[in-house]
Amino acid sequence: MIQVGIVGGTGYTGVELLRLLAAHPQVELKAITSRSEAGVRVDEMFPNLRGHVDLEFTVPDAAILKSCDLVFFATPNGIAMGMAQELVDAGVKVIDLAADFRIKDIAVWEKWYGMEHAAPELVKEAVYGLPELNRDEIKQARIIANPGCYPTAVTLGFLPLVKNGLVDISRMVADAKSGVSGAGRGASVGTLFSEVDSSFKAYATPGHRHLPEISQNLSLIADDEVGLTFVPHLLPMIRGIHATLYAEVADHGVDLQKLYENFYQDEPFADVLPAGSHPETRSVRGGNVCRMAIHRPQGGNTVVILSVIDNLVKGAAGQAVQNMNIAFGFDEAAGLGIIPQLP
Amino acid sequence: MIQVGIVGGTGYTGVELLRLLAAHPQVELKAITSRSEAGVRVDEMFPNLRGHVDLEFTVPDAAILKSCDLVFFATPNGIAMGMAQELVDAGVKVIDLAADFRIKDIAVWEKWYGMEHAAPELVKEAVYGLPELNRDEIKQARIIANPGCYPTAVTLGFLPLVKNGLVDISRMVADAKSGVSGAGRGASVGTLFSEVDSSFKAYATPGHRHLPEISQNLSLIADDEVGLTFVPHLLPMIRGIHATLYAEVADHGVDLQKLYENFYQDEPFADVLPAGSHPETRSVRGGNVCRMAIHRPQGGNTVVILSVIDNLVKGAAGQAVQNMNIAFGFDEAAGLGIIPQLP
Amino acid sequence: MIQVGIVGGTGYTGVELLRLLAAHPQVELKAITSRSEAGVRVDEMFPNLRGHVDLEFTVPDAAILKSCDLVFFATPNGIAMGMAQELVDAGVKVIDLAADFRIKDIAVWEKWYGMEHAAPELVKEAVYGLPELNRDEIKQARIIANPGCYPTAVTLGFLPLVKNGLVDISRMVADAKSGVSGAGRGASVGTLFSEVDSSFKAYATPGHRHLPEISQNLSLIADDEVGLTFVPHLLPMIRGIHATLYAEVADHGVDLQKLYENFYQDEPFADVLPAGSHPETRSVRGGNVCRMAIHRPQGGNTVVILSVIDNLVKGAAGQAVQNMNIAFGFDEAAGLGIIPQLP
Amino acid sequence: MIQVGIVGGTGYTGVELLRLLAAHPQVELKAITSRSEAGVRVDEMFPNLRGHVDLEFTVPDAAILKSCDLVFFATPNGIAMGMAQELVDAGVKVIDLAADFRIKDIAVWEKWYGMEHAAPELVKEAVYGLPELNRDEIKQARIIANPGCYPTAVTLGFLPLVKNGLVDISRMVADAKSGVSGAGRGASVGTLFSEVDSSFKAYATPGHRHLPEISQNLSLIADDEVGLTFVPHLLPMIRGIHATLYAEVADHGVDLQKLYENFYQDEPFADVLPAGSHPETRSVRGGNVCRMAIHRPQGGNTVVILSVIDNLVKGAAGQAVQNMNIAFGFDEAAGLGIIPQLP
Repeated sequence: MIQVGIVGGTGYTGVELLRLLAAHPQVELKAITSRSEAGVRVDEMFPNLRGHVDLEFTVPDAAILKSCDLVFFATPNGIAMGMAQELVDAGVKVIDLAADFRIKDIAVWEKWYGMEHAAPELVKEAVYGLPELNRDEIKQARIIANPGCYPTAVTLGFLPLVKNGLVDISRMVADAKSGVSGAGRGASVGTLFSEVDSSFKAYATPGHRHLPEISQNLSLIADDEVGLTFVPHLLPMIRGIHATLYAEVADHGVDLQKLYENFYQDEPFADVLPAGSHPETRSVRGGNVCRMAIHRPQGGNTVVILSVIDNLVKGAAGQAVQNMNIAFGFDEAAGLGIIPQLP
Repeated sequence: MIQVGIVGGTGYTGVELLRLLAAHPQVELKAITSRSEAGVRVDEMFPNLRGHVDLEFTVPDAAILKSCDLVFFATPNGIAMGMAQELVDAGVKVIDLAADFRIKDIAVWEKWYGMEHAAPELVKEAVYGLPELNRDEIKQARIIANPGCYPTAVTLGFLPLVKNGLVDISRMVADAKSGVSGAGRGASVGTLFSEVDSSFKAYATPGHRHLPEISQNLSLIADDEVGLTFVPHLLPMIRGIHATLYAEVADHGVDLQKLYENFYQDEPFADVLPAGSHPETRSVRGGNVCRMAIHRPQGGNTVVILSVIDNLVKGAAGQAVQNMNIAFGFDEAAGLGIIPQLP
Repeated sequence: MIQVGIVGGTGYTGVELLRLLAAHPQVELKAITSRSEAGVRVDEMFPNLRGHVDLEFTVPDAAILKSCDLVFFATPNGIAMGMAQELVDAGVKVIDLAADFRIKDIAVWEKWYGMEHAAPELVKEAVYGLPELNRDEIKQARIIANPGCYPTAVTLGFLPLVKNGLVDISRMVADAKSGVSGAGRGASVGTLFSEVDSSFKAYATPGHRHLPEISQNLSLIADDEVGLTFVPHLLPMIRGIHATLYAEVADHGVDLQKLYENFYQDEPFADVLPAGSHPETRSVRGGNVCRMAIHRPQGGNTVVILSVIDNLVKGAAGQAVQNMNIAFGFDEAAGLGIIPQLP
Repeated sequence: MIQVGIVGGTGYTGVELLRLLAAHPQVELKAITSRSEAGVRVDEMFPNLRGHVDLEFTVPDAAILKSCDLVFFATPNGIAMGMAQELVDAGVKVIDLAADFRIKDIAVWEKWYGMEHAAPELVKEAVYGLPELNRDEIKQARIIANPGCYPTAVTLGFLPLVKNGLVDISRMVADAKSGVSGAGRGASVGTLFSEVDSSFKAYATPGHRHLPEISQNLSLIADDEVGLTFVPHLLPMIRGIHATLYAEVADHGVDLQKLYENFYQDEPFADVLPAGSHPETRSVRGGNVCRMAIHRPQGGNTVVILSVIDNLVKGAAGQAVQNMNIAFGFDEAAGLGIIPQLP
């Protein structure tokens, strides 16, 4: 049983963390902080948690956080980098669900996130928490940079192809679609129901913050620079990411279906569907899993990978719990057995 | 550990039963039948169950069903009444999620369901499976008639008022709204996405099959005939029922909020919200709970009860599992600890 | 051809007014004001208007507004009451789509709207712009208080019953459901897509601002005080109001279907459906019409009226244009021939 | 004023045709046929048309159809090809909204549509009704093959690039997303609300019927064979197509934004948005227009075109009316001035 704190629990990744941790057999929730909601019962704000979480939001208190074994940051970008050092020094493990520790090149990070980085030395130390890529490093990590939602879906989708040098990495395309919850719980006109429902659009085509993160992942895997066109779109639904990935394969005669099945066969949360499948985002809604299908339309040289996750689970809180399980030596699937809801 | 069979598992209550039973610590799923889908893997039809249910649909086989401890019927109305006797005779408990055993007056049943009843004597024996009403009878029951979704939300909402004789039972109103999944998974124009999305309507105002079921419940509770106007509506969403209930109270000075809190304080799955609340259907989505709030607008004589459930869980499969737990002496909450998803 | 100005055109009633007025044969749009968006092209904010509206938002300019024949206020409550006198003095007609002139009893208004009224004398003069009730007065009006959305649907639904003294007016129930656009285009957590989609709830059960407006209407019609319980609900869709109305009828043997058909037979925008119908909100989406159906379930004493409108059209901008047509002697249906979209 | 008949008016393209034609100043609707609904009032099936269409469905009657000036086929594939010859011989123009006359290569058509073609000689004569491509031919045509929805969005999006030889036509990608109404009004499990809402998936990745149609268009424009990967996806919304198009440009220093603006400057229904824009499908909902934006992310060689239409309007019924206007010498925009609804 470990003691866990959550900093910034009023957003969607926060409530999702609470949903997962409340049912985790080895976790005791010690504190959940929110300056603005201090004193409010968690289950008053999130009534789905009634009977499951008996806590109030509190103002962040360093002493309490330092007495935890692990602190999750479910905060906006730029918060964790100011608090992590103190916690790590106190022997507390840190998992940041925001972007502070994801990008190794500080200059790149500062350009895309529009602020100065407060803890560049911790970035060096931090482990990028994609278990399918870095499981061994996560075991030892003091600071884990939990991946972004788009980067999780896109990286897992391309990983076996790029790792095996099977595609032209100079011009890959990731056409990605996300549910609205990815934009968070802050009040804004752009994510009002009446602005988003019954409509669909691309956004950030000139450049999205997840582009450098994905490019870093794929370049590390390829051990070479990649050329990626990444276009995110906004879906009129709450949860789910669907990445449709395009790349050119030389015809090596490799059976790509087999390749993917073998590559992921021991992974508890990466699921390769039978040949010919089309994964639906609802098949992963609420569950910590990435499902994929591999296509080669008309037998041509363009391979199409379809990759779906729940952006709040495998794309955020679920992956964070998976990282926690690995870092503390628990069963990697502990607390993550939730079956997706369908319909 | 009991052996459980499901007859008719291809609809929404079927897949929901599977989601719940697959995670139940004392249940072994032995068979799930479907004539039309025999030979198809369950997780091919319902990919959310991949990794959790390793079964194929089979043609119904009396021998296998009779070797179970319990058989659920997740079939259309009129199926269970033809098969129940044989199972009961073999010592198998039966829980019918359809309407075959809900209405005690056979003539009324035959009028509303448009067919002759095949097993009137079993109707007499069957226990109406609303635990908050009939927990003791359920413990001994061989046949349990699992309540309809609307009747669950409406009955639980009115129960404390009617039981305590506080309202004029001659003219009560239940304005109920349901998500589309209540209409089932059969192909029909009326429940197509393009017919239902972004629109709202009442239906069956002249008379809905759940009206006699609700009236029977309330009359039994009141020990007198009730006058109920019941208008169901179709919501452009998948899961959830919201019943808005209206009745006239004489001013006894009774604190209705306290009354409800006391009435339901020991119930694991009936949750009275704090005064002034408005339950959202999403607060119960995926979970086996009915949440209620009590209002008396402008301090007048009209009391307004707001009652929400997930129609597929507390309104169907979850309540069926709750009934199973009671009937087999398990912890009533076993396998039902799922926290609703929000957002 | 009249010159028309719009004050406050950046909300949903504003863009809807623009959609209607841009296609109106006797209207020239002269100015649309918005302090915050001054200088922005209207069709940059609302790209559906590209090719139809060639205007920029401007800061409100008294001289320009006073040179109009008519000014619409599509502003928050409390704005029109500060500007109307000056316009009326300059011979400009005013139609306020907000609530400033709807409630005759100033004390009641101030209680429900939480501010002091700035122009009580104009309230006396203002005509409540429900054409089916006040057509003759609208013809002469200088100030028209455009009705609220709920009050339009509920008043038109109850009107023939109450006018003819057929129901017990001491305890009527209006169970009303609205799309989210009724809450406006302001940024707020409560109307975010992820808060509203796939869920349903009642709100403001203790008291909603439209209650005194509806009560005023019905009391004037009945020439007696009415007792009304009004519970609004939030639908997971953008446009549409569905009011389900309940009242007790004494059994006069009146044919209610005929009564409604006769009552509304000359009304261009009140449509009584054939007996047994259930109006869908989509049947009025984008159109300026209220459709109604009359039921008397099981032949009992409770009459159920189903009444639907598009809250942005007959519930706001369309009714405002209808009022303009009446006030300026145009064909009442001019510019309002838009056929609702289905699906 | 021309006399118009519609064969097969009970689907979504049928009701949309009715919505448009009912408001068209030069059209008299003479007959609308449906074997299954003969005798039913059109506005009983589609209540949005109450007060606008005063017709009943009738069984198809050759004499009546032959007395029309124009007959639209809003039928399933394979119907128009059996009836067109007789009509054309009688001097009636035919516009087929299905696929019977779209593909010039009969063998290709028969392969993708799974039936023998009944009128190959008419295919030769038929004009592909994309006005931006074939306006002059449409003027003279007796038979017009109204384009598919995906082909309209994709072809208009790629047209200026391919026409000007600016991209590598051997490997283009069209990642297309469609609302559910594109699947029609037939009862099927796959398009039930509970199957489609709150979820997203690709489908028909191995090959979709619109692929050969798009390839034919682009090959004709390029005067060379093209290599296209086309992946359609299903959006949880009713109306709208968004095509995200990817192609490699050689760096000729061409200003693509200017190119598109010039190319489409005289087109009434192709709208190039300002640089940096992201078209939303709602900006065209209910309107007959294709809106496009041109991007070149990070200044690289991959050009990204975003192209949106309403699949039922510019993708079906609206384009059919546009073709009618051209073929009969009317103002091309007659009856098509409907402003899209937002929100």
